[in-house]
Amino acid sequence: MAGSFDAFARKLGAFVALSATELDVLSRLHRRRRTFVAGRDLVHQGQSEQAAYILTSGWVCSYKSQPDGSRQIIDFQIPGDFLGLRSILLHTSDHGIEPIGKIEAAEVLRQDLLDAFAHTPRLATAVLWAASRDEAMVVEHLVGLGRRSASERMAHMLLELGARLALVGMGDKAGYDCPLTQYHLADALGLSAVHVNRVLRQLREEGLVTFQGGHVAFNDYTGLVALAEFDPTYLDQMGPLLD
Amino acid sequence: MAGSFDAFARKLGAFVALSATELDVLSRLHRRRRTFVAGRDLVHQGQSEQAAYILTSGWVCSYKSQPDGSRQIIDFQIPGDFLGLRSILLHTSDHGIEPIGKIEAAEVLRQDLLDAFAHTPRLATAVLWAASRDEAMVVEHLVGLGRRSASERMAHMLLELGARLALVGMGDKAGYDCPLTQYHLADALGLSAVHVNRVLRQLREEGLVTFQGGHVAFNDYTGLVALAEFDPTYLDQMGPLLD
Repeated sequence: MAGSFDAFARKLGAFVALSATELDVLSRLHRRRRTFVAGRDLVHQGQSEQAAYILTSGWVCSYKSQPDGSRQIIDFQIPGDFLGLRSILLHTSDHGIEPIGKIEAAEVLRQDLLDAFAHTPRLATAVLWAASRDEAMVVEHLVGLGRRSASERMAHMLLELGARLALVGMGDKAGYDCPLTQYHLADALGLSAVHVNRVLRQLREEGLVTFQGGHVAFNDYTGLVALAEFDPTYLDQMGPLLD
Repeated sequence: MAGSFDAFARKLGAFVALSATELDVLSRLHRRRRTFVAGRDLVHQGQSEQAAYILTSGWVCSYKSQPDGSRQIIDFQIPGDFLGLRSILLHTSDHGIEPIGKIEAAEVLRQDLLDAFAHTPRLATAVLWAASRDEAMVVEHLVGLGRRSASERMAHMLLELGARLALVGMGDKAGYDCPLTQYHLADALGLSAVHVNRVLRQLREEGLVTFQGGHVAFNDYTGLVALAEFDPTYLDQMGPLLD
């Protein structure tokens, strides 16, 4: 099982120092391993009786389809993220979740989660922390759409992804591997693909960041942070609040 | 104590049928009653060691200030809503919470909440449900800013508030009392106050909704729902999922 739940344990460990019992409960939540490929949603918008998942490898995006056929990407999820928590707590999933390439995830049934919470209440608090952190990210995206320019929005998203990936050991201030296309970025940032292309070229020409060949390279991390006014406090990665 | 925690119990009751023990724990979470007036924030953006609150009377707004002095309102909260859950779970509050007029709220310390979760794990799940529902609302606001026109956004927000107020017995399909100013609506919807004024006049002249003198009157509820393409499923008000 080594490696299979590392990212999730590592992430929750940022909030609570996990005991052996809690690690064991977490490990058991990873029993039902599933593989998904691009084009087949894990969670379907508007349907009930959905499962939740813990993503163990690969990236996914959560999105809402609009009646006119357009879609708004709410967020991207990376290994260690809980997927579809809202889908099992709300009667009907308010969003869809789509794999970006091939991914692996552990399926978590509502009852498994309730049992885990009953036996290890601190885990419930840790999952609530992760949900709060997810909401803080959605709030930042809301502020981005409401108040930031296209290049500030792009810079902010690339920095946020970098900080999140660093927490699970998949990136640093030099950069990270990133499977997103310009269409994903466009649907997340409320821009056209052409506009995304222009903004990325501009950021590259200013020597701030280069996104090419599936890799994001921070050429001037401090300059990019200044442009985006990126303050990572909301990602709450400063170490455990609970002993 | 009767009446003091009705709204919160009623709201959580939409997710879980509460036992006498759970109601008692909820009641005890309402011990520390506080009164706040407009202009004095309950929760301060960027500060740590913040308390959380359960709003018992009045309205508040949660917002993020931007470095340029503008602010984005994330959401409005009404009686029965949990305020600042993220402020006690994250090290530093990522947002501020401001009273709209005079309000009353019960202060909840982090330890009280952790104790309540340890003794009544179903309450933890109910609070996680409420947090999921709050996030579903923020996601709708994100979609609104990314994909909806000004009048659709306004219609959607007025309908959402009506549905939430109905859950706690403070509104129905005829309308509801509403203390918001055009400045609040502008900061929430990413519009100028002048634009808000124009949109409200247009909706009134089309016979859909009238917002005047602190009251929202739905003149044509079905027509407004059609304009906003409002589907209240994400508010998850269809009755308890847990027995």
